[in-house]
Amino acid sequence: MIELYTAATPNGWKASVALEEMEIDYQVHGVNLMKGEQKQPDFLAMNPNGRIPVIIDKANDDFVVFESGAIMIYLAERSGKFLPKDAKKRSQVLQWLMFQMGGVGPMMGQANVFHRYLDEKIPVAIHRYQNEVRRLFTVLDGHLSHNEYLVNDYSIADMANWCWVRTYEWSGVSIEGLANLQRWKNSIEDRPAARRGVAVPNKIDKEDLLKGAKSVVTR
Amino acid sequence: MIELYTAATPNGWKASVALEEMEIDYQVHGVNLMKGEQKQPDFLAMNPNGRIPVIIDKANDDFVVFESGAIMIYLAERSGKFLPKDAKKRSQVLQWLMFQMGGVGPMMGQANVFHRYLDEKIPVAIHRYQNEVRRLFTVLDGHLSHNEYLVNDYSIADMANWCWVRTYEWSGVSIEGLANLQRWKNSIEDRPAARRGVAVPNKIDKEDLLKGAKSVVTR
Repeated sequence: MIELYTAATPNGWKASVALEEMEIDYQVHGVNLMKGEQKQPDFLAMNPNGRIPVIIDKANDDFVVFESGAIMIYLAERSGKFLPKDAKKRSQVLQWLMFQMGGVGPMMGQANVFHRYLDEKIPVAIHRYQNEVRRLFTVLDGHLSHNEYLVNDYSIADMANWCWVRTYEWSGVSIEGLANLQRWKNSIEDRPAARRGVAVPNKIDKEDLLKGAKSVVTR
Repeated sequence: MIELYTAATPNGWKASVALEEMEIDYQVHGVNLMKGEQKQPDFLAMNPNGRIPVIIDKANDDFVVFESGAIMIYLAERSGKFLPKDAKKRSQVLQWLMFQMGGVGPMMGQANVFHRYLDEKIPVAIHRYQNEVRRLFTVLDGHLSHNEYLVNDYSIADMANWCWVRTYEWSGVSIEGLANLQRWKNSIEDRPAARRGVAVPNKIDKEDLLKGAKSVVTR
């Protein structure tokens, strides 16, 4: 059993999509980011960085894992799924996972801040991040023009990038003209486990609102 | 033999510090970022994202690895050094490596852009990134208050974070009052291999200037 502390964000979805795809039993704990629950002492004891998602593996001495990229690797190795055993293929999956961790994620995050969250609209910053996100999407599109998935079979690299790419409209970035990226995005959206993964935190958040309290919902 | 394509940046140093610490034979190819060599077709054939560092493992069918975090994992597994075999310790190293990949690196990178590179000074953006970097430094400092290194023995997680943290002045961020971070930073600076690692691309760049051409220098 995995305990998952999460919220409805792309990094949160990376964990729940992985758990769903790997068919691992887990229990969801909704973390209310607006109330700052991720900065409370009990949460910081799990992740001193105060960020979701975090998992606790009850079947491994309550081992705690933070950072969504590290969670995906941990779960893939625990389940033996979606991270190839072959050393070269495995490295390639980690390369495209790092591409998301260091590129797509942070840059879409900054695009969201300047395009959407800040009251003051700063064109230089908005354009900088939207242009960089579009450039990263174009890199993915080029790679996907001769690859069905990022590395052979569907892997945690696809899950990680997809959880961010699917929110392109929120960042104010177009995917027009990127036919390979669209084909890849659509094919992952057709996966029932991926769809369940991105629904779980949303469902929890709605239940939070109804209950008015931090919810603990068993899958 | 490893072929290393790099430049004098924190991400470039991550690769050369790892190679030096692991005592792996390598050949350095300086990539002139100002001339845009990383966007030329021969470079993009190695890394479609057009970013340094990239390695080619001549001893493994010319296998190419891009993304500095993935390079560190690849080299650690190749050498059997600086990434624990124990599954929990190994995951913890990957967690702190991801903390650098998704946090310290991108945020210091943005601080550099707005604090140093852009002619237009935008206080909102400068403060946003400098504050976030200081927050991340504080997280490291707190963790290092009860840990000599990020995870038990010195590992690729320390190398990765150190290559960025050491450039704090360039980002305009103070490390005053963060005694644990300073102690950790100083202890890594005392390592001859780490010092050689951060000198190699600088040396190459100077040789580039002298020769006026892309240099290939054997270690």
